Amino acid sequence: MAEDYKPMWQELGLDIEKHDALLEAVGQMYGENFLSQENRPKGMEYFDFVVSEIHGLRIKELVDARKAGRTVIGSFCVYVPEELILAIDGISVGLCAGAEFAFDMAENYVPRNTCSLIKSALGFKLAKVCPYLESSDLVVGENTCDGKKKSHEHWQSIIDNLYVMDLPQVKNDNGRRMLLEEYTRFAAKLEELSGKKIEAGKLQESIAIVNKKRKAMNRIYALRNADPAPISGLDALLISQVFFYDDPVRFTDSVNAIADELEERIKNKQGAAAAGTPRLMVAGCPMAVPNWKLPAIIEDSNAVVVGEELCTGERGHEYLTDENGSSVDEMMGNIVDRYMKIHCAVFTPNTERLEKIRDMHDRYNADGIVLYNLQFCQPYQIESGLIVDDLKKSGIPVLQIDTDYSQEDAGQLQTRVEAFVESMKG
Amino acid sequence: MAEDYKPMWQELGLDIEKHDALLEAVGQMYGENFLSQENRPKGMEYFDFVVSEIHGLRIKELVDARKAGRTVIGSFCVYVPEELILAIDGISVGLCAGAEFAFDMAENYVPRNTCSLIKSALGFKLAKVCPYLESSDLVVGENTCDGKKKSHEHWQSIIDNLYVMDLPQVKNDNGRRMLLEEYTRFAAKLEELSGKKIEAGKLQESIAIVNKKRKAMNRIYALRNADPAPISGLDALLISQVFFYDDPVRFTDSVNAIADELEERIKNKQGAAAAGTPRLMVAGCPMAVPNWKLPAIIEDSNAVVVGEELCTGERGHEYLTDENGSSVDEMMGNIVDRYMKIHCAVFTPNTERLEKIRDMHDRYNADGIVLYNLQFCQPYQIESGLIVDDLKKSGIPVLQIDTDYSQEDAGQLQTRVEAFVESMKG
Repeated sequence: MAEDYKPMWQELGLDIEKHDALLEAVGQMYGENFLSQENRPKGMEYFDFVVSEIHGLRIKELVDARKAGRTVIGSFCVYVPEELILAIDGISVGLCAGAEFAFDMAENYVPRNTCSLIKSALGFKLAKVCPYLESSDLVVGENTCDGKKKSHEHWQSIIDNLYVMDLPQVKNDNGRRMLLEEYTRFAAKLEELSGKKIEAGKLQESIAIVNKKRKAMNRIYALRNADPAPISGLDALLISQVFFYDDPVRFTDSVNAIADELEERIKNKQGAAAAGTPRLMVAGCPMAVPNWKLPAIIEDSNAVVVGEELCTGERGHEYLTDENGSSVDEMMGNIVDRYMKIHCAVFTPNTERLEKIRDMHDRYNADGIVLYNLQFCQPYQIESGLIVDDLKKSGIPVLQIDTDYSQEDAGQLQTRVEAFVESMKG
Repeated sequence: MAEDYKPMWQELGLDIEKHDALLEAVGQMYGENFLSQENRPKGMEYFDFVVSEIHGLRIKELVDARKAGRTVIGSFCVYVPEELILAIDGISVGLCAGAEFAFDMAENYVPRNTCSLIKSALGFKLAKVCPYLESSDLVVGENTCDGKKKSHEHWQSIIDNLYVMDLPQVKNDNGRRMLLEEYTRFAAKLEELSGKKIEAGKLQESIAIVNKKRKAMNRIYALRNADPAPISGLDALLISQVFFYDDPVRFTDSVNAIADELEERIKNKQGAAAAGTPRLMVAGCPMAVPNWKLPAIIEDSNAVVVGEELCTGERGHEYLTDENGSSVDEMMGNIVDRYMKIHCAVFTPNTERLEKIRDMHDRYNADGIVLYNLQFCQPYQIESGLIVDDLKKSGIPVLQIDTDYSQEDAGQLQTRVEAFVESMKG
């Protein structure tokens, strides 16, 4: 990244020294995991550029947008509705939570046995290395899991622009009504913050923008059922990650360009991996940038990842919001209906997720599933037993991996993944 | 316990061999921890008897009551309203979850890093050693923490009489309305199960019965502010534990008898420990029978426990339900208001708990607080950081202990507690 972002970072209050160290580490990881890949789609150049400017150009855009009166909303979760943020002409960005950074500082607040994602988010704040967070007018936390819900109480003492969104735990009428009330409260907060009223026309437009982004993602994901896989799991994951912080229209164009290219590659039998390479699907906890650990291990083990049942994957982009609403109330209802479909493990029961995973496994022509849990993520970890049982009954090979952001277990994981891949060939 | 309960246990489907082993272990623990105490109130004889018949006489009462057409409701949580259960002439019993039993079996369902209480409940079921569970017409689980919420999904595959109560996470209007709806749904379930309608007169009576039980507990707890402490922490905890499964009227009489006796003891300066013994309050996770580990360690360390901010303590019995309602609807509202006051860490924010703990510390004339967390109980563990900071600011000595049901760390805990007690004397 160019040297001349330093004044901007300083102005945002970043710790330049730590931030330099972080960027260097991420750049190195990116080089090793992504740039070293062979047979990548040419369209990935855009994403290489995006990552190279991850704390540069995009942050400058946010800074400039705020100067021009726009509002930046930072969040950590797929339940925060981007439609509403765009409807006040705001910008939605995912916040840093994907690297083991300043965990020692985070552990001054939350216990060691808290999941890496939560500790990472805290660490990035405490070490002052997340320019997205520092550029956010509002930081939205949500009551999904206990870890996040309770860590927000610590965040309240650290930042003064935290907004907590409550969420239901059950998908029934009460749950739906509660989500509608919470989205209505959130809409009011956005209006207050921006001084802009959410109007029907603009909301309709916003829904269409976000749907287009999702449709572009769904195009890519649908094409991954081909053999040879036209795109690596690492590259597809990266696109799913960038989904959360790039400009939505520009992002959609770039994703559609890749989708066009993948269609060509499929016609030409051109793959990111050779035809016949064992095909794995990954299901479980979100993987935020730069958490590329597991797909990197899988794709280093003579297998290719062909689908992600993750927040940074189908869970994040699959469903569309119904565009048939005309009044704001109707559209709010449609938005709520869309988000109520998401199969996050914080819901109970969550049996639809079992069906979803089996369905994805079929759609992607996968040979097996790697169930990925962050250590201490109780919702996903406890749900895993049910999923493993279900998949085994269906005769679908499954490997459960519970890990964190460290590289300490990388060798051991590689051995397990290799053995799993080997067993599928037999 | 008498030999002749065996046919009953067999009929309940218990694993007699494992159950014998459990009873022997609990009996031995009880002897070591309780019967070895000096200067106990005479009224504790009732509770010694209750514990000696914990799986005998009380279970026989449940069996007989069911034969007579009454309904037994088993539960794990202070949010399950006993008032409603009594209103259908039902019996409310707390279920076994206090011992490390068959954790290996439980870990076939939930991850190792699940709290001991949840693993214990599962272990007791899988090993078939909890006669309360086997005597329950309905087993009520609740969506409090992620661990419980998600483990219910496993319970569904093990038992066919599980009822899951959803709970709010925030104490606002939505939360109150949700709890009212859930209690209304629970009342309907109780009516369906028992074939009895909840009538205003009977509900009023039920509220009075439960309130009397709470008032008796509050009497005991209020008397614990005396120096010397008129009752040991172990004995007070035991009473708080028996609160959940004894007949409420008989229990209330026994507690009031002890309270009368404690008043006498205070007049006579008679204590369970010598005057001037360092006084500790315990705050945190529930301690179900036979989880006496921490108070036993504390009271073996030249200190006395003078109050419990636990579900098995003030959190379980402090607040009364307003008795001024006349219609069922009004009373339902009063019940909801009462339960909404409980300061469980699953709520966010839960700052009132900080005030509650400081208030209790004052009321009990405590010299310090031991914060007790079950390992992997994220709500209490994450909240602890806030509490420790708050207490330190207030100059109140605090020791945080995160542990489980094993005895492996008992020596280490004793060393830490002794050092804490020593530091308070200085």
